[in-house]
Amino acid sequence: METAYSGPPLGKDTYNIKRGNFASLTDKDLNVFEGIVGKSRMLTNVSEVKPYNIDWVHSVRGSSQCVLKPETTEEVSAILKHCNERRLAVCPQGGNTGLAGGSTPVFDEVVISTSLMNAIISFDNVSGVLTCQAGCVLGQLESYLQEQGFMMPLDLAAKGSCQIGGNVSTNAGGLRLVRYGSMHSTVLGLEVVLANGEVMNCLNKMKKDNTGYHLKHLFIGAEGTLGLVTKVAIHCPVSPKSMNVAFLGLDNYERVLEVFKLIKRDLGEILSSCELMDRSSMEAVEENVKLRVPLKESPFYMLIETSGSNCDHDKEKLSQFLENALEKKLITDEIQASEPSRIKQLFEVREKMGEALFLDGHLYTYDISLKPQDFYSIVHTTREHLKNVPGVLRVNGFGHFGDNNIHLNITSKKYSKDIVNNLEPFVYECTSKLGGSVSAEHGIGLKKTDAVHFSKPPQAIQLMHQIKNVMDPNGIMNPYKVLPSINSESA
Amino acid sequence: METAYSGPPLGKDTYNIKRGNFASLTDKDLNVFEGIVGKSRMLTNVSEVKPYNIDWVHSVRGSSQCVLKPETTEEVSAILKHCNERRLAVCPQGGNTGLAGGSTPVFDEVVISTSLMNAIISFDNVSGVLTCQAGCVLGQLESYLQEQGFMMPLDLAAKGSCQIGGNVSTNAGGLRLVRYGSMHSTVLGLEVVLANGEVMNCLNKMKKDNTGYHLKHLFIGAEGTLGLVTKVAIHCPVSPKSMNVAFLGLDNYERVLEVFKLIKRDLGEILSSCELMDRSSMEAVEENVKLRVPLKESPFYMLIETSGSNCDHDKEKLSQFLENALEKKLITDEIQASEPSRIKQLFEVREKMGEALFLDGHLYTYDISLKPQDFYSIVHTTREHLKNVPGVLRVNGFGHFGDNNIHLNITSKKYSKDIVNNLEPFVYECTSKLGGSVSAEHGIGLKKTDAVHFSKPPQAIQLMHQIKNVMDPNGIMNPYKVLPSINSESA
Repeated sequence: METAYSGPPLGKDTYNIKRGNFASLTDKDLNVFEGIVGKSRMLTNVSEVKPYNIDWVHSVRGSSQCVLKPETTEEVSAILKHCNERRLAVCPQGGNTGLAGGSTPVFDEVVISTSLMNAIISFDNVSGVLTCQAGCVLGQLESYLQEQGFMMPLDLAAKGSCQIGGNVSTNAGGLRLVRYGSMHSTVLGLEVVLANGEVMNCLNKMKKDNTGYHLKHLFIGAEGTLGLVTKVAIHCPVSPKSMNVAFLGLDNYERVLEVFKLIKRDLGEILSSCELMDRSSMEAVEENVKLRVPLKESPFYMLIETSGSNCDHDKEKLSQFLENALEKKLITDEIQASEPSRIKQLFEVREKMGEALFLDGHLYTYDISLKPQDFYSIVHTTREHLKNVPGVLRVNGFGHFGDNNIHLNITSKKYSKDIVNNLEPFVYECTSKLGGSVSAEHGIGLKKTDAVHFSKPPQAIQLMHQIKNVMDPNGIMNPYKVLPSINSESA
Repeated sequence: METAYSGPPLGKDTYNIKRGNFASLTDKDLNVFEGIVGKSRMLTNVSEVKPYNIDWVHSVRGSSQCVLKPETTEEVSAILKHCNERRLAVCPQGGNTGLAGGSTPVFDEVVISTSLMNAIISFDNVSGVLTCQAGCVLGQLESYLQEQGFMMPLDLAAKGSCQIGGNVSTNAGGLRLVRYGSMHSTVLGLEVVLANGEVMNCLNKMKKDNTGYHLKHLFIGAEGTLGLVTKVAIHCPVSPKSMNVAFLGLDNYERVLEVFKLIKRDLGEILSSCELMDRSSMEAVEENVKLRVPLKESPFYMLIETSGSNCDHDKEKLSQFLENALEKKLITDEIQASEPSRIKQLFEVREKMGEALFLDGHLYTYDISLKPQDFYSIVHTTREHLKNVPGVLRVNGFGHFGDNNIHLNITSKKYSKDIVNNLEPFVYECTSKLGGSVSAEHGIGLKKTDAVHFSKPPQAIQLMHQIKNVMDPNGIMNPYKVLPSINSESA
């Protein structure tokens, strides 16, 4: 990420958060921690701690004074046992690439960084089950598996930094969810250290295990508020032998829906990615990062990837699909790629979209799920709503169409409180009315706790609180995150 | 199921269960229930109630005196609200086809049957999302979707009776899990009535929704102990245009592992089923139900199904795979089928295996997950262990190899307590040592609560109890099921 958030720093003041009833760190605590991880893996120097207080896009600022870097589950267990007894709040941190401020401290939470828990424990090349520590970087796992003819079932732009424990804890989505499913589909087992330091070893490696409540799912997407994930067992598919990409131009949104139906029919089992971009997003890439797709200008573009086990078959399927789409006049233009370097080029346009929009000055972005029929309406509605608001440069949308996940973007030259006030809760209300999700893949973290009730009923929010209370009675695990304050339920 | 369990009836005495501290049904309660569902949908006549007290395979007997058949969520809510206030225990029941005794009352629980909650609410032919009431029969949904060019993502032998709410509540597996994933992958949203009668509407229809804890997964596989599932939203794939089946003969188990690797490489994305059967299972089918596969006798057989969007491609892939397997001498014989009637014939052999074994007299069966390398060792170990035990007719295994799920079977002419004592906890201990699951797809129900600790650590069992206590403090939801008694944790 070469660009960063340019608004006022977000933190306790932005969200009106009071520090919880936690103890403050003492020299005695530091001595205990030093006894657990040793001097070299405990950071207390302000400049060393600083990067852990700031998130990836530089939006959030915490004021932790201590970062611990355990290497083993036992060390995590000892740390949490002490913190729980002392009522010291902790902030588990993986690659710190989250976009909702979930991985950065808010006040003086002790940061437990999993960066040194990066061992690959085992890989079974018959079942495809990979077992590793939570701190393994996604890209590192990808390289490891590639050598064995396998692949990770998820692919994220942040893969050079993000860690598998964080991917699990945020239920990370990405470009290939349409094919391989979410972390709820691919994670087979977890080892988790609970708030009181107890280790719960549910590191099951079986695809089927119906022995009681399916507890691992509680930790998938809980953003470290219910326990700290220390080990992960995940099912990995065999690498495809063939990959193909097509970039399409489309005249209007109705055609997008028709093309999607055709994709499901003609490409079925080989589809591995299905992205949608509008003209305004493409303009941002053309203007701000000087990339171009050699397609004629179109109101909409789709980027389709196929992955399969037979090159000839895949190419034939893709050709047949394109032929059908052209014949039915569903698409106006298309280009294809099969060479890795050419595929990369086409994907680059999509991957640079976030950065391109950042370069306008300030980016307001919403990560929303909407059903296909409503998917793009949120862009029109928002554009109309903002038409008289000064300073708005672009209102556009792109995203994982195959998973009904749109990134709605608004840009201005400079941060504008007026624009924010016009967007929130407007965007959430519109999404809620359409039965969508106000956070499709980015999670809730610190930034969106007030928005949970737009997608979850009061009974669910109450149950979330009950589960939190029973699993972490002192509330030390990543406080101020995920759970809406009780008041906001009735908002 | 034309055959049935032939041992002594199972129930409270078998498992040494004392009736919980619940109220007993009074005329006043019946008046309240009548006020909710009306006279015609409340059964209290002994002969009418009887079928609800006995499970599908006639193994379990309860003594409920009242069956309620609500049609709406509101009725379920009113029933549970009353039961919770009065501390009346309830047993939610779908198609009552479970194999672990989870759907049948143990004492006098009020049965809440979802059979009349069988409305299809909506189907979106772009996103493939089906929304329906919990009592829809799986086969009924399958027929409905077929007309729209879609299919259910699960296929079970019990599809003529089992209900989608029960499928969700037991996390039902079946023949196609290898392709479409478990209910955790396919279910998008649930509406659930909680123990106190509150309706929790998490009927999300989005593939991505990271707004707080992923609560729906708590109810998937909870067997009705945490709430009663009233509505389901599920993602359904497009029907394949092409299906092919191959039946293979193999010389030894090492070849099975090699063939599986080849399947993953050559059939990859089109594999939709991968079953393994041993010679002894096949003998039972030949002898007891007079079915034969026209293959030469082999120690092992594999049944492979492919589903795809292009007939020519699928046939070519399958031929190429078989050519490779023959060339490498991994298989000794093979037959293929592409016609629906012929495919059905080949699958019949596999589907009749349970029935064939029942016909030996008495069947002891274990539903186990083991990693591919250990998958069949449990059959050898058990056979060896039973070699001097009188009365054993067959010890064999078949199952969902692609999902690491083996059904271990032992038969005798008559039920023998001696054989049972030799099998339990022996089979569970062996499975546990190998890191397997003692209940892959059948669940825990009434029959296996004492076995949970073989696959779950004490911390997980404790967490299960904590969650149960917080969500159902009076313990009225399907008591005596799923949760091990606290004592058995230390067993």
